Formats: sequence, C-alpha cells, structure tokens
Amino acid sequence: MALPKQYTRQPGSLARSLEVVGERWTLLIIRDAFYGARRFGDFVGHLGIPRAVLTNRLLHLVEHGVFAKALASGSGYAEYELTSKGRQLWTVIYGLIRWGDEHYADAGAPRVFEHAADGGRIDAYSRCARCGQSVDVHDIQAVPGPGFVPPESQDALTVAMLQPRRLLEPLRKL
Amino acid sequence: MALPKQYTRQPGSLARSLEVVGERWTLLIIRDAFYGARRFGDFVGHLGIPRAVLTNRLLHLVEHGVFAKALASGSGYAEYELTSKGRQLWTVIYGLIRWGDEHYADAGAPRVFEHAADGGRIDAYSRCARCGQSVDVHDIQAVPGPGFVPPESQDALTVAMLQPRRLLEPLRKL
Repeated sequence: MALPKQYTRQPGSLARSLEVVGERWTLLIIRDAFYGARRFGDFVGHLGIPRAVLTNRLLHLVEHGVFAKALASGSGYAEYELTSKGRQLWTVIYGLIRWGDEHYADAGAPRVFEHAADGGRIDAYSRCARCGQSVDVHDIQAVPGPGFVPPESQDALTVAMLQPRRLLEPLRKL
Repeated sequence: MALPKQYTRQPGSLARSLEVVGERWTLLIIRDAFYGARRFGDFVGHLGIPRAVLTNRLLHLVEHGVFAKALASGSGYAEYELTSKGRQLWTVIYGLIRWGDEHYADAGAPRVFEHAADGGRIDAYSRCARCGQSVDVHDIQAVPGPGFVPPESQDALTVAMLQPRRLLEPLRKL
C-alpha cells in the first residue's frame, strides 16, 4: 500500500479521499457493491481481481467505514455492505462512468442508468431527465446500454446484470 | 505504469476512465490545473511529486487529451492546459473533495468553493446555494475555508491560494 503514505503530506480533502479510495481496484470494488456484490467471491468472480489484493482493499475499506462487514445469517459468509459514507461515493463513480461513456464508448454507453419509477435517464446531477426529480441511489437502475457487449464470464454478478438491476439490491435474497 | 494494463480486460466505462485518471497522483495534478498550475515547476512546487512521475503522468494525460501542451509565448516554457475533456473532470474531483471534507476534515473544510458572482456556496450538483443557478467551473472560486492551515511551502500556487482564486485562471498573466 504505497499510495496512502505517498499522500499523507499533501494538504487538502482530495488527498484524504484518495488515501481511502484512490488505490488500484478500489473504485471498481465499490462500483460492484453498488451493483449488488457483497461476498468476497462476488468481487473475485466479476472483477478477476487477485485475492490478496481484494483482501487488502476490503480490510482498508472496512477500517475506513466505507463497508460494514457482517456474517450473513444462514450462509455464514462474510458480507460487505456499503455504509452511508460509502454510498455517498456514487456521484464520484457515476461521474467517472459518464466521462468514460462520453470519451471512450464508441459504440455508446455499455450501461445506462435510469430512474426506476419512470425509466428516465439519470443526468450528471442525479436528476431524472423525465420527471426532473433528484433521484436517490436506491431508486436508480442499471440497464444494458447501446454499447453493451455480453461478457463471456458467467459469474453471478455478470449474469444478474444482463437484466435491469436496482443499485444496492443484494445479489442474493437476504 | 502497471495500472492501465491491469484494467484493460475489465469491461465498463469506469475501468476506461480509471485507465486514464486512476493512477497515483493524477487527480491531484488535474486538481492543481483547475487551481491554475500550468508549468512543470508549478506542479512540482505544489505537490512535491517526483519529477519522473510527473513527466510520466503529463505525457499520459496529453496523449489522452486531458491536457493540451503548448509553449508559452515569451517565456518559452511548456504549459499544460486542461482541455474541454479535462475540465469535465471537475465534478469528479469536487465530489472527492466534498467527501473528504465531510469525513476527514475535523476542523472544517480546508477550502470552500463559491459562486464568484455572489459568494454562494457550490453544492454537490454544481448549483449555487444563494442564487440557485448551475455554475460553470469558470465561475467558481476556491477560498480558504474554516479548516484552512497555511502550508509552510512558499511555492507559487500555495502563495496564490492564500487568497480567493478563480478556477482555471492561470497562475501567471498570459
């Protein structure tokens, strides 16, 4: 974890945030949690992230209160759930997704984000283009977009995301 | 540059964006460009970033059209200016600044962002809390906030930012 140490002498809130979420893979892990991943195996399956790196990142994110870790009743698996603090990162993640869509998605956005209530597109400011309301992250659904290419992977999250999916809805019924 | 290679097999626009701006230091460099840094020495002086790393990052960002590089008339120094594509990253940077302010700035935000026209605070959605308008990044000023601690460094950008400063205004008159 060379990154956090590198920034500790930097003043400013951006450096503080990057110490927590600026490491390689971290924002992809958090994005997958918005998509419903909660178990270690969900993240490994969807991201192909090395297990040691994932272990390290999850530990760091639990320490910083981005994830809460709990044992799922029944299965006994550890589950990582975004806290309120973690959910506040959606606007950052969505900003980066939109930037990538605009500049790197030649065939159109691979995934679009809609207001679940009426199907209106969510704009850069979390407003629904149809009804004009500010939309809470729970009320957003991710839908395969014009540039969507079905991935070869058959992991649980990839399969679930072939269909419209509410953000934060767990991949498995609790 | 291990990072971009690590993500190239990941689908999705977030991975594409992170290939461009997800490396260590990159978002801090871009933030400093919003604050008016344009020359190699401005970034080195303010960030204390190793020169070889900065060289690498600037090259990458010019290649990806985040910065345009030009020789300043008169001085002959190379200057790095945010392109339109680069300026679109403000919402991401501001989102991370606000997240850091909320969770890590115990003494209050070290820097606050205001609508230059009326001094209203800029909210998470780029709106002015006073007049309610959406504010363009050119019309935002960064002002030392309640948690501001004057840094010891006397580099040009640090000194300039002791005062309110319009975003994107070059550190030196052109």
